[in-house]
Amino acid sequence: MPELRSIDAATGEAFGPAFDTHGPADVAAACAAAEAAFDAYRGIAAEARAAFLERIGAEIAALGDDLIVMAMRESGLPRMRLEGERGRTIGQLKLFADVVRRGGWAGLRIDPALPERTPPRPDLRLRMIPLGPVAVFGASNFPLAFSTAGGDTASALAAGCPVVVKGHPAHPGTGAMVAGAILAAARACAMPEGVFAHLVGAGNELGAALVQDPRIAAVGFTGSRSGGLALVKLAQARAVPVPVYAEMSSVNPVLLLPAALAARGGELGAGFAASLTMGAGQFCTNPGLVLAIEGAGLEAFIAAAGEAIAAHDPAPMLTGGIHAAYEAGTALLAGHAKVATLAQGLEGAGARGQAAMFSTDAASFLADPALGHEVFGASSLLVRCADEAELRAVLAQVEGQLTVTLQMDDADAAMAARLLPLLERKAGRILRNGWPTGVEVTHAMVHGGPYPATSVARTTSVGSMAIDRFLRPVSYQNLPDALLPPELRGGGTQGWPKLIDGELA
Amino acid sequence: MPELRSIDAATGEAFGPAFDTHGPADVAAACAAAEAAFDAYRGIAAEARAAFLERIGAEIAALGDDLIVMAMRESGLPRMRLEGERGRTIGQLKLFADVVRRGGWAGLRIDPALPERTPPRPDLRLRMIPLGPVAVFGASNFPLAFSTAGGDTASALAAGCPVVVKGHPAHPGTGAMVAGAILAAARACAMPEGVFAHLVGAGNELGAALVQDPRIAAVGFTGSRSGGLALVKLAQARAVPVPVYAEMSSVNPVLLLPAALAARGGELGAGFAASLTMGAGQFCTNPGLVLAIEGAGLEAFIAAAGEAIAAHDPAPMLTGGIHAAYEAGTALLAGHAKVATLAQGLEGAGARGQAAMFSTDAASFLADPALGHEVFGASSLLVRCADEAELRAVLAQVEGQLTVTLQMDDADAAMAARLLPLLERKAGRILRNGWPTGVEVTHAMVHGGPYPATSVARTTSVGSMAIDRFLRPVSYQNLPDALLPPELRGGGTQGWPKLIDGELA
Repeated sequence: MPELRSIDAATGEAFGPAFDTHGPADVAAACAAAEAAFDAYRGIAAEARAAFLERIGAEIAALGDDLIVMAMRESGLPRMRLEGERGRTIGQLKLFADVVRRGGWAGLRIDPALPERTPPRPDLRLRMIPLGPVAVFGASNFPLAFSTAGGDTASALAAGCPVVVKGHPAHPGTGAMVAGAILAAARACAMPEGVFAHLVGAGNELGAALVQDPRIAAVGFTGSRSGGLALVKLAQARAVPVPVYAEMSSVNPVLLLPAALAARGGELGAGFAASLTMGAGQFCTNPGLVLAIEGAGLEAFIAAAGEAIAAHDPAPMLTGGIHAAYEAGTALLAGHAKVATLAQGLEGAGARGQAAMFSTDAASFLADPALGHEVFGASSLLVRCADEAELRAVLAQVEGQLTVTLQMDDADAAMAARLLPLLERKAGRILRNGWPTGVEVTHAMVHGGPYPATSVARTTSVGSMAIDRFLRPVSYQNLPDALLPPELRGGGTQGWPKLIDGELA
Repeated sequence: MPELRSIDAATGEAFGPAFDTHGPADVAAACAAAEAAFDAYRGIAAEARAAFLERIGAEIAALGDDLIVMAMRESGLPRMRLEGERGRTIGQLKLFADVVRRGGWAGLRIDPALPERTPPRPDLRLRMIPLGPVAVFGASNFPLAFSTAGGDTASALAAGCPVVVKGHPAHPGTGAMVAGAILAAARACAMPEGVFAHLVGAGNELGAALVQDPRIAAVGFTGSRSGGLALVKLAQARAVPVPVYAEMSSVNPVLLLPAALAARGGELGAGFAASLTMGAGQFCTNPGLVLAIEGAGLEAFIAAAGEAIAAHDPAPMLTGGIHAAYEAGTALLAGHAKVATLAQGLEGAGARGQAAMFSTDAASFLADPALGHEVFGASSLLVRCADEAELRAVLAQVEGQLTVTLQMDDADAAMAARLLPLLERKAGRILRNGWPTGVEVTHAMVHGGPYPATSVARTTSVGSMAIDRFLRPVSYQNLPDALLPPELRGGGTQGWPKLIDGELA
């Protein structure tokens, strides 16, 4: 097996020890252990599961600054960003602990027997049960919050599913430290052996073997469109197909409505550039597409954005491969006959991605769907539209998105209202007067959206609703209390939401 | 296009007029109209949508006995069954009207802004929106409750999705009458043009064109495994893949636990035979597999079941094709070297399926997975197991199921408890001391289950939870009240369940 070592994102140099890498036999062993742990793990009380999640957070915190230093070096991301991401990761575990305790995830429903009815109605009780062992693919761009102990792992463990993580090879050191924290928490909380495993390897074989293992019941993935679709294909071809929750691709259109643009074009341009270049643009929610109607303020927007971008001193990108793909994507745009280069950032050494802003007109965009594809990094395309009809036509052609943002003033409200039904069909989240790059980890968040933003639009990968991805309903008919799961005995667990004859109790 | 006429199930003779059949151009027109109706239909108030569903029920009732007579002749099913099914169909529409009014389907979540936090938290509000136009494939075996105005149509309309039905060619007359009732209700309730369409045709091209139409956002299907998987494949190959909710195949294992068998083997045999032969065995939940541990009462079970089956005078099956497939399936079992024929029902003329009960031993079952496949009709296979371990091994090999049934007495409770975790992983519904062929249309029902019982195990096609299949979440960030959907304005619709900061309000 090829050697796997940490790579310093800024220099491209390997550092630290070589990591043990894993192959098909390790996948089989991890999945067998996860399967063996499943019934025990899903059977523990909600409070114990919640405590385990919180303990994982505590163990991550206990890694201290070593974790931040390792993640900084492997990812090239700055300290403040990674400290924030660590807080987000721990907060996310705490959120799911709260969710587990509140019990709404169990979806309890009780339809009491109606013995007097003709024919008599049986007693029917429903709860959600976890799907089984879940495979999680760590993402490169959030080495903490979307990786080893990220949202997929937290929500799957919260649902009662053992987790086998395929660690991202761009941050093996960070992954190993976090995996150690999870395993320490599992031991401290006396969780069943096999509830968590962490596998690493440089090629695609490891991940393919994991998705194909018959014990894996669902897959969580954040990454590229090609990677996500490859996993979806593998999962669909199994003897028993399983769901792949892949969060893949989004250009997150920002609509500059006329009144807002006229009133504060320059301010919007500066805000846009800050959102675009943050974290070297390596966000799923990066604003890669800007739609504007020709008119007052657009030149001010371009000037302010261009000025900020031109002065932008680039940070290293996560990996050499990501940098190369970014360079190729921006080169295609720069060389496109119908695309003008509005601004370019400063050049940087090594794997630093020069920020870039391009523009085209609506007709050219409509003629070439490739212009709507994601270029992962700090690159964005402004589409100049003649009027609302053209803006709508461009939006209609845009693929499914994680987010759509409206920059608007009160005078834009009527146009916004006309556009909203279309926006709802295009994206999982609609923002007003913000930037899409902030994603709250909360209950009303949707970090999902129509294909190809995700492979399953009916879900989210951020926020408490993410737990639902790993659950399925089971109905119990005329089971005596002793055989029912504890939460469905009698009137159902006190304090947990439930539907009694369809009425929320 | 080939002519489509009603076929008398009992005689195989065509009767009545030829129906207009539909082709690709009709599919395109119906889908375009459904798409055009979508925003208007999803935008109407919940009360209006609920009233529409109730009106459909009233229009079906108003068809009177003509509908029953037509369905009897086309399906070969008896009057009492079809009258019951009509009641179920109307009741189902009423159930979804109640669900729509109660508002739980909207999944409202509000996370109020926290302006004092650093950084400030935006206002986030979430609701479920309908996916878009839904294609529904009518099933042959429930010409009312799983067909034109069946559970898929009712739940999709309840969710706010226009519906294009591909009527089942086995009951074009019944389908046309019910479609007329739905269209009359749509007119009476001033629903948008295109909210419902009904297409018929004899071949597979019509259905394929429907699933491939880019305006179709989801598919509901009840039928054969081969049919369901073909639709899944088409849907996955689209430029934008869409979910197919296919309910396909189940043998619904019945476990005869030792104490129950010893105490009432004969009674169980008689009950089993009644469940097996009801409706010519043409139920998704037909008990096609019986698992028993050798011991007291098993011979009494076999004798009683055999006696009832041997005396069973068969009813016509739904179609000649279904009858031919049934004959082929039972012939395979009868000719299998490791399978004994325990009982056969009376022969009948035409498309009447002779009931049949077979047996094999656990080792033979384990050696030949084909023995676990569904034979649609009144055929069942008894697997004789030496002990609990063998019973468990057989169960472990069985594919995903809609139901598993425990026939048990108090003395069987410990064994039942040991088996339950496995049963939960195998089926969507677990019954005690009943027969799987009754499916309540209620809130805690799951008519679903792991593959290949269905293509999406995280759902149900019967009961109020079926509405969730056609919804996806959208999050609104910092939208002013005027732009928010009405149900998310202010504190959210009064009386509808909602999570405020994760707490059920």
